[in-house]
Amino acid sequence: MAELGEKELLRRLGRFAPPGQLADDAALVPSTPTPRCGVVSSDVLVEDRHFSQTTTPPESVGWRAVMANLSDLAAMGADQVVGVTVGLGCPGSLPWHWLKSVYGGMVEALDQHGGRLLGGDCVGSPMVTLAMTAVGTVDRQRVIRRRGAQAGDWLVCSGPHGLSSYGLSLTLHGVSAEPGRLQAQAVAAHRYPRARLDVPPQLRASQPPGTPWRVAGTDSSDGLAQALHLLCGEQGLGAHVHRLPIPAALKALPDAERHCLWGGEDFELVLALEPSWAQALLERDPGFYHVGTVTADDQLLLKDAQDGQLRPFPSGKPFDHFSQTSPMETGTHGIPGPPWRDRPPVRTQTPDSGG
Amino acid sequence: MAELGEKELLRRLGRFAPPGQLADDAALVPSTPTPRCGVVSSDVLVEDRHFSQTTTPPESVGWRAVMANLSDLAAMGADQVVGVTVGLGCPGSLPWHWLKSVYGGMVEALDQHGGRLLGGDCVGSPMVTLAMTAVGTVDRQRVIRRRGAQAGDWLVCSGPHGLSSYGLSLTLHGVSAEPGRLQAQAVAAHRYPRARLDVPPQLRASQPPGTPWRVAGTDSSDGLAQALHLLCGEQGLGAHVHRLPIPAALKALPDAERHCLWGGEDFELVLALEPSWAQALLERDPGFYHVGTVTADDQLLLKDAQDGQLRPFPSGKPFDHFSQTSPMETGTHGIPGPPWRDRPPVRTQTPDSGG
Repeated sequence: MAELGEKELLRRLGRFAPPGQLADDAALVPSTPTPRCGVVSSDVLVEDRHFSQTTTPPESVGWRAVMANLSDLAAMGADQVVGVTVGLGCPGSLPWHWLKSVYGGMVEALDQHGGRLLGGDCVGSPMVTLAMTAVGTVDRQRVIRRRGAQAGDWLVCSGPHGLSSYGLSLTLHGVSAEPGRLQAQAVAAHRYPRARLDVPPQLRASQPPGTPWRVAGTDSSDGLAQALHLLCGEQGLGAHVHRLPIPAALKALPDAERHCLWGGEDFELVLALEPSWAQALLERDPGFYHVGTVTADDQLLLKDAQDGQLRPFPSGKPFDHFSQTSPMETGTHGIPGPPWRDRPPVRTQTPDSGG
Repeated sequence: MAELGEKELLRRLGRFAPPGQLADDAALVPSTPTPRCGVVSSDVLVEDRHFSQTTTPPESVGWRAVMANLSDLAAMGADQVVGVTVGLGCPGSLPWHWLKSVYGGMVEALDQHGGRLLGGDCVGSPMVTLAMTAVGTVDRQRVIRRRGAQAGDWLVCSGPHGLSSYGLSLTLHGVSAEPGRLQAQAVAAHRYPRARLDVPPQLRASQPPGTPWRVAGTDSSDGLAQALHLLCGEQGLGAHVHRLPIPAALKALPDAERHCLWGGEDFELVLALEPSWAQALLERDPGFYHVGTVTADDQLLLKDAQDGQLRPFPSGKPFDHFSQTSPMETGTHGIPGPPWRDRPPVRTQTPDSGG
């Protein structure tokens, strides 16, 4: 990067945005007339903590950064993506082709949701950091907040949990030379997660007539257990979880429950809804899971699959960014690249839409 | 920070935002009905490159980060600040009181313009990084772009240039034990710059009747010469600069011209305007400088103060983030702290406005 210089780098990165988009000091975003308003979310990814140049394909680094941010927008009820700004820190020694693939992955992820690269900043830094801010819009009358669950609400989630975490463990600890279908699926789930921006429209479509809008929700980026804690425990409520949304293919694994509850990065939405609304949603989309019920006490209890008894959640711990170790610091083994590259090659040309 | 843990850190940082502001996955920003629209800008600051824990007071780190971003909004014509999101990376060993003062400085800077801390992210990182995204609004019919200058336009800037750069050099190379008024002013200018969000309203107020809105402009964060290059050179135009906006107090210094042209971080706006509009602006606010004229050729020429001849700009180089050295890497000497701490102590309590 050092030999390119900042100006040439900016010129090259500009190709990932609509023509002229990066030509000014800041980026314009469209008007949002009432009843809509804007929604913004920021995430920071740091090399060797959230990703590794040796075990994460660069397309995945960019794709995951975008999807993690868009997942936060979805968790607020957003159903429209404007785009992202990217604050990039990188060492002068970083090869351009790596960075090019990161931005390619970003743009491909944005394309899934009609978003664009809005702008950003590039600075020198001892290691790669990727700070992203996503901008979207939401109907102000249809916002999802973490607060607002009530005892008796059903807890539903938009999909299974645990596959991404299993994929991460495979990435970190190595997979067999000829990975089976489940292993390939898990690594792909980890590398190319999808933000559930389709959920807010489904919530609107399944809202029973006459029912006021009251949806508590969050995404499961830090794990299902953490999401339930935010929706219930943090609000002085509890939960009875009678069914864990473990993917069928994962059930045979000894640590399937741990991956499901504590793994994180499945980027599904976890919601607390009035029961008739939850039922309508589950009927509308069988991909949703009814995982339990909100209770008035402040305990998170899980129904034992063997004896049917309710017991406190098995131990586990959400990822703490300031603890001594992080997933990426526990040592890595090379895994074969190409088999996981199930995504089509990323586009590096700009869309032809105007700035 | 490690002993605090992420949850406690987030709770403490939450005190710098309006109550409940950081309680969700993302932040809502107000509707922007036509003719207004949103404007967003991102900047990244990296420790020991853009600031140093040993030579930059933490309040200044936060203040400068905010003002640099708001300056980008002003350079787009924004006259309203919504707020900023902050992506913080920091090592577990960072003392809380340092970070508290950084956020205090941010909030104080935001307070100057009615903005708020909107949200953000905290991650562990080997060194402190501060990635900020500012959100504001602009009248879509009153946008300032870098492109659009025409030969014959007057080049004006909103204030003098060079004081911040001189202040930085004092910070890096040491000042006398009893700094004079100029030294104190310069260091304060470097540490507590002000974004010129007052300029867009002044442009509107001075627009001659019947003149269409055509304002080319940028901010001088990377130096006056770089701003002129963006407005003229990058657009295939040139400039005759007949007067450098060197602050009177700086004129006696041997390298005053270099500070003024190449120093950067004065965060003034540099504008190309139709002459009658420029005249009206200069009459309205005597703090503005008429620095020169846009020309049809592509040369940036400076009138020599001695013989009145036009000559190419004296050599200098805008700061390249990927070059081997950066201002903060050239070695520092301790400078006394309190004399520069001319800002009132920062507020660490939240405003009482709702989320």
